[in-house]
Amino acid sequence: MTGRLDPSHDPAVQSWVASANDPDSDFPIQNLPLGTFRRRGSSDQPRIGAAIGTCLLDLRRATEVGALGGLETATRSALLGPDLGQLMALGRPAARLLRTALHHLLRADSPLQRPPEECLLVIESADLLLPAAIGDYTDFYASIHHASNVGSMFRPDQPLLPNYKWVPIGYHGRASSIVPSGTPIKRPRGQLQTDPVPGPVLAATTALDYECEVAAWVGAGNQLGSSIALAEAEQHLFGLSLLNDWSARDIQRWEYQPLGPFLAKNFGTTISPWVVTLDALEPFRVPAAPRPEGDPAPLPYLDDPGNQSRGGIAINLSVELRTARMQDEGLPAHQLSCADFAAMYWTLGQLLTHHTSNGCNLRPADLLASGTVSGPTRDSRGCLLELTWRGTEPLTLPNGEIRRFLEDGDEVVLRGRCAREGFRAIGFGACAGRILPA
Amino acid sequence: MTGRLDPSHDPAVQSWVASANDPDSDFPIQNLPLGTFRRRGSSDQPRIGAAIGTCLLDLRRATEVGALGGLETATRSALLGPDLGQLMALGRPAARLLRTALHHLLRADSPLQRPPEECLLVIESADLLLPAAIGDYTDFYASIHHASNVGSMFRPDQPLLPNYKWVPIGYHGRASSIVPSGTPIKRPRGQLQTDPVPGPVLAATTALDYECEVAAWVGAGNQLGSSIALAEAEQHLFGLSLLNDWSARDIQRWEYQPLGPFLAKNFGTTISPWVVTLDALEPFRVPAAPRPEGDPAPLPYLDDPGNQSRGGIAINLSVELRTARMQDEGLPAHQLSCADFAAMYWTLGQLLTHHTSNGCNLRPADLLASGTVSGPTRDSRGCLLELTWRGTEPLTLPNGEIRRFLEDGDEVVLRGRCAREGFRAIGFGACAGRILPA
Repeated sequence: MTGRLDPSHDPAVQSWVASANDPDSDFPIQNLPLGTFRRRGSSDQPRIGAAIGTCLLDLRRATEVGALGGLETATRSALLGPDLGQLMALGRPAARLLRTALHHLLRADSPLQRPPEECLLVIESADLLLPAAIGDYTDFYASIHHASNVGSMFRPDQPLLPNYKWVPIGYHGRASSIVPSGTPIKRPRGQLQTDPVPGPVLAATTALDYECEVAAWVGAGNQLGSSIALAEAEQHLFGLSLLNDWSARDIQRWEYQPLGPFLAKNFGTTISPWVVTLDALEPFRVPAAPRPEGDPAPLPYLDDPGNQSRGGIAINLSVELRTARMQDEGLPAHQLSCADFAAMYWTLGQLLTHHTSNGCNLRPADLLASGTVSGPTRDSRGCLLELTWRGTEPLTLPNGEIRRFLEDGDEVVLRGRCAREGFRAIGFGACAGRILPA
Repeated sequence: MTGRLDPSHDPAVQSWVASANDPDSDFPIQNLPLGTFRRRGSSDQPRIGAAIGTCLLDLRRATEVGALGGLETATRSALLGPDLGQLMALGRPAARLLRTALHHLLRADSPLQRPPEECLLVIESADLLLPAAIGDYTDFYASIHHASNVGSMFRPDQPLLPNYKWVPIGYHGRASSIVPSGTPIKRPRGQLQTDPVPGPVLAATTALDYECEVAAWVGAGNQLGSSIALAEAEQHLFGLSLLNDWSARDIQRWEYQPLGPFLAKNFGTTISPWVVTLDALEPFRVPAAPRPEGDPAPLPYLDDPGNQSRGGIAINLSVELRTARMQDEGLPAHQLSCADFAAMYWTLGQLLTHHTSNGCNLRPADLLASGTVSGPTRDSRGCLLELTWRGTEPLTLPNGEIRRFLEDGDEVVLRGRCAREGFRAIGFGACAGRILPA
């Protein structure tokens, strides 16, 4: 926390969009996340919007009619684009000015003229698309609880590899198969080993899993051969979404050595369509999780007072499951787990700085995902592999159904919510996907 | 081979561009590779060209003046674009018609009017750029000799992992840091373990290596959730370039478990700028390398009579090194190794089919690299890690210099050449990069 309260975080401010004042809304005027949409059924070019309550403000139209004041020419031009890519490239300052302009326009006591009706539409009437064309997608492994749990299943004698506490472990994922929330996910086929047949067969996975993650969108990039210091890292992050890194554990087990997961992951990855800016998350910044007694200090390039004091972000992440039978029976989704993003072993700043430490160039709209967010307790495990301990401890759902891994028709919904005494809570909206048969 | 000779492969045909008739030229009229360029020193938009001898034909200008007959509207439009991306998306048939049109225009006895002078420029007067904006880049591990050599250094008891003969092992690489031939490569820093200091330090790599690979450009893509059968795989490949997957072995050793190589690879990858189309390679198709006695047959989805009879491509790949001292002394580059691409364990078709077997979508201008191409003999090893056996058997160069790994100022040049009795030899041009200090 900076100490002084930015007016855009003032919990007393309400919006003239009444639904934004519902205390349960993820999108009060204190949030103002950005996304890309198309009016449902239209053949319009995709355009940019900001969520406010149950509505979205069409930022292209709002720019065209001059409803947004105080923006630089480059920002106005970016708001006319087909997605958030150009705006991300302008970096944090432009995003902050846009946030201020949206706050002024949408607050209940705004002296500004309200934008014409056509600028505001109900979110339900829009198709929410990928926020931007993702260049490169990197997935990290930043929860030590997740790494330890998974490690202890596969290497009981050495759950955590020797590099874990030094290196923010990451790998490159597939950008082409990242889809927006709501897109169905087809159960993948792959090489599996099915005892007692010797050798693998090509078959539909029987160990389909989700992974609950936070994804950071890169704003301003860096040149190839240059590195970004930890103190500057967050100036290169635009905002966050939720991400479900669907995983086929049986394919993964057979293919992953020695070069890492591949077809076990790249059949589909779901991202929530609203990008919550780092400025909106300002009230929820907390110290980086303290390292357990005896752990090594991070190497100097991954250590910085600012990171220690406010490198964490307190996001409450939950996972809900709704099976086809639950839907038929009219039952609500069942919460499987709940974890705190602030407990991660590595902060987002450390991930970004490590990524560029060798001179690797990040580009606007690249995506850095955290890896599965799991906490230390059983009810904070962020995937079924951990929750059912590789299927050996099946879950019983409230209606009696049993799950080791996901079945066809299952819908998984990730949610993220930030709450703090003295501030208006904000949320990320849903990151949802349903499994289709192979 | 199809049996009949396509006129575009007729070795008797010469070009009115005299340099193309030099028997040593990589770019005779039988080749006609495509690339993206900008006139050196100009601020023109990049545009598409075809190499012919020491020259390139400006395809944008040639299209504008109507010099190319017999093309569909979509192809003409693609030739006006800023890179090869649109043309790749049109798939093999469009590339084939373009090849025919170029052959007719450039053959010595062409009845067509020669294009205006401004359409032809000397390659040396152009900057050759990335052929297209790469979406996703996948790197495979398809040489069993490379996998066995590397494996035996790290796991003497089990050089080849049990999955190798079943799964075409691959992983996602970094697209943002792929640069065209000639771009200098800065020695990366990274976490290294330097005995006797306990724990890693951040330092410049002392084990910088190259890897000689072949990269395939995806043409027409596939929808997420669909797969491409092996019999159809090559209809989705546009053409090939050479690729140098620069690798920092000390960073790699420390970081790669459990999720694979990351910062050891993504600081830079060099690609040759000319894309040799699959049609140009037609005379050099050979059977897939026979599997050694006792190896399992590929699973049915990776097996197909067409792949068996002509899945291989006979490309002679060589690696040359020229140190700073060799350059000072006026010495030519020294050949380090030479390997045959036809000896790979998995064919390009098998790599592509495996990649989509889980429904992963490929997009035009995605890149699939083969992994290091190493043969069974010492002089066919495609990287220094193998050639110097992890630095334990240093190389002595003709001028007395010694190399375990690359030093600052070293230039590595990959070349590829296809030759066959009764056909005109063709080549790939150079894939070159020089090491800058950290």
